[in-house]
Amino acid sequence: MRRAATDPVKKALILQAETAVTFDRLKAFIQEALVRLGLPDSDAATVAELMAQADLQGSDGHGVSRLPQYVRRIKAGGFNVRPNIRLVHDHLSTAVLNGDNGMGHLVMKRATEIAIEKARTTGIAWVNSQFSNHAGPASLYASMPLAHDMIGLYFAVGNANHLPPWGGLDMLLSTNPIAAAIPAGDEQPIVLDMATTVAAYGKVKTKALRGETMPEGWMIDREGKPLTDPKRADEGMLLPLGGMEAGYKGYGLAMVIGLLAGTLGGAAMGRDVIDFNHDDDSVTNTGQAIAAINIAAFGDVATFKRSVDALVRDIRGSSRMPGVERIFVPGERSHATRMARARDGIPIAPALMRGLDQLADQLGIATLA
Amino acid sequence: MRRAATDPVKKALILQAETAVTFDRLKAFIQEALVRLGLPDSDAATVAELMAQADLQGSDGHGVSRLPQYVRRIKAGGFNVRPNIRLVHDHLSTAVLNGDNGMGHLVMKRATEIAIEKARTTGIAWVNSQFSNHAGPASLYASMPLAHDMIGLYFAVGNANHLPPWGGLDMLLSTNPIAAAIPAGDEQPIVLDMATTVAAYGKVKTKALRGETMPEGWMIDREGKPLTDPKRADEGMLLPLGGMEAGYKGYGLAMVIGLLAGTLGGAAMGRDVIDFNHDDDSVTNTGQAIAAINIAAFGDVATFKRSVDALVRDIRGSSRMPGVERIFVPGERSHATRMARARDGIPIAPALMRGLDQLADQLGIATLA
Repeated sequence: MRRAATDPVKKALILQAETAVTFDRLKAFIQEALVRLGLPDSDAATVAELMAQADLQGSDGHGVSRLPQYVRRIKAGGFNVRPNIRLVHDHLSTAVLNGDNGMGHLVMKRATEIAIEKARTTGIAWVNSQFSNHAGPASLYASMPLAHDMIGLYFAVGNANHLPPWGGLDMLLSTNPIAAAIPAGDEQPIVLDMATTVAAYGKVKTKALRGETMPEGWMIDREGKPLTDPKRADEGMLLPLGGMEAGYKGYGLAMVIGLLAGTLGGAAMGRDVIDFNHDDDSVTNTGQAIAAINIAAFGDVATFKRSVDALVRDIRGSSRMPGVERIFVPGERSHATRMARARDGIPIAPALMRGLDQLADQLGIATLA
Repeated sequence: MRRAATDPVKKALILQAETAVTFDRLKAFIQEALVRLGLPDSDAATVAELMAQADLQGSDGHGVSRLPQYVRRIKAGGFNVRPNIRLVHDHLSTAVLNGDNGMGHLVMKRATEIAIEKARTTGIAWVNSQFSNHAGPASLYASMPLAHDMIGLYFAVGNANHLPPWGGLDMLLSTNPIAAAIPAGDEQPIVLDMATTVAAYGKVKTKALRGETMPEGWMIDREGKPLTDPKRADEGMLLPLGGMEAGYKGYGLAMVIGLLAGTLGGAAMGRDVIDFNHDDDSVTNTGQAIAAINIAAFGDVATFKRSVDALVRDIRGSSRMPGVERIFVPGERSHATRMARARDGIPIAPALMRGLDQLADQLGIATLA
């Protein structure tokens, strides 16, 4: 049931045969793997919780699918499994947290907790990481302040440069994402999480795996012509958000986000960024930034939430273009996925399951399912 | 020499006949007009300085070209010429400034000064405005922290809704801009200033005035088809940044920026936004937000600036696509314009000059040139 298949019928059968696992089981599996690799129990639990949350909300490219790569990196000495995560700069409303090359999830969870704590008294706080690593989906950290009636903003330097400057050929920038989470009242919070390229690089990889072509507008070749064959992705580059028409805006955003998330905190940016897909052991010096904005410092929290609710309802109830069934607000789809997967389980694609089975075998732990 | 002309030859002659004025003359003209309309001398000087700076840096749609509209609005009672601009919420690192319906330039200059002052001691500060008004180009305020070795971030709710939610027809959002200014060392600062639509609405108006068609991708009609005739702009809507391919990202950004700049500070957002192009007397309750980030709180300022310089040089010196003469960094073009206009004067188009002459006549002040 888990064999590779090339013909569509077999492929469809295998897709149907996807295994679903519970959140708790997925978390326990990841945690056990990380403990075997030397992480302290509580750190392994923290990373596993965040990785499983990524899968739960449908951020499949940022959850357990990363585990094989993380394991490779830990074995190669590319992650410090016993990091001394510490503040290197600390002011009333800002801090820089040195992650000591630990897993990014640990660094950015701590950074976000610090930001929330500071924002309680000062109204806003902003914390940068340095010597951090890939931390999964941006929205996880942007959403942490929500429970404290705070807005979260998150910026990150991506872990591989796939984006050239506007008009250029040298890939000096990454898909540097931005995320924002804004609490509502009766409605779900607004959660935006976006790469500053038209398409994230993970989407290109998925198209290649499926043997599909990409739409025009995702990538261009070195002559500036549309590139639609994802197997030729190495010959081309991602288009910045705005595409051929206004890609200088996406380029500008990617650059500014990189400066805020990387350079400001003393982390890598531009040519110093390590492509962690092709390098398992170099210290990446990844940088991220989290801001927490305390709504109570700006007025009545209940009034704010009512205004957000009203906006969401105005938007959802507004007239639709022909053929559009529903107007979505950022975060609604991932919320729906979270609900569905909490009920039905988290689907694990067959190819990924095979990789995780091998991993379990290597590490001497029980298979996921 | 200042007559309207429809044939291209006459038009070209008239374009050549554009009058250039100095920064000082332009500022003095605007200041005198505003004093005649009842603004206190120092407030008139502040607004005039910022409006002339907009023209100097090439933000022509946000400088003196707005004066006729501002004058109409003041005469109609739509601006408060003697506002009591005051803090309504004040915390260690945040504040909300009530502009008392004064001109936006006054409100946001004050807001930025407050943010800079707070960020000196706390590392970051964020100030929202409420009951503010149109304040000109976002980059003006984002750039003010630069002189203090701080990064500036600016967010605004646009003063007319031209953007529907993704898949929708009702224009519930504006082109809500974001600006960021980041200091460099020997290089010019990086200054990004962008609307979250593919094209700002002012660009559509310019195309209409010139009798040109728009490129596909700027606007769509109510069926979702490309709209390229700018005279039909009223039948269509702007596309959010990302266009047909990824416009849900620009829509998400516009929404988040509106919540941060408007809702958070108790200012208008969504259906409460007043279209100030078609309304001269309603209180707009415009909202903006400015953040100042003190680089010294994150590490050594000189090191930061060297890193920015290195990035700028890497980008500028990187390989170019065929046909690309130069790779630009955000802010380079406006800096070049500022230098050129400081030397050669600020060009005033004939149609605008006619309007300003009429204004001078109405107000009983000397003409601009």
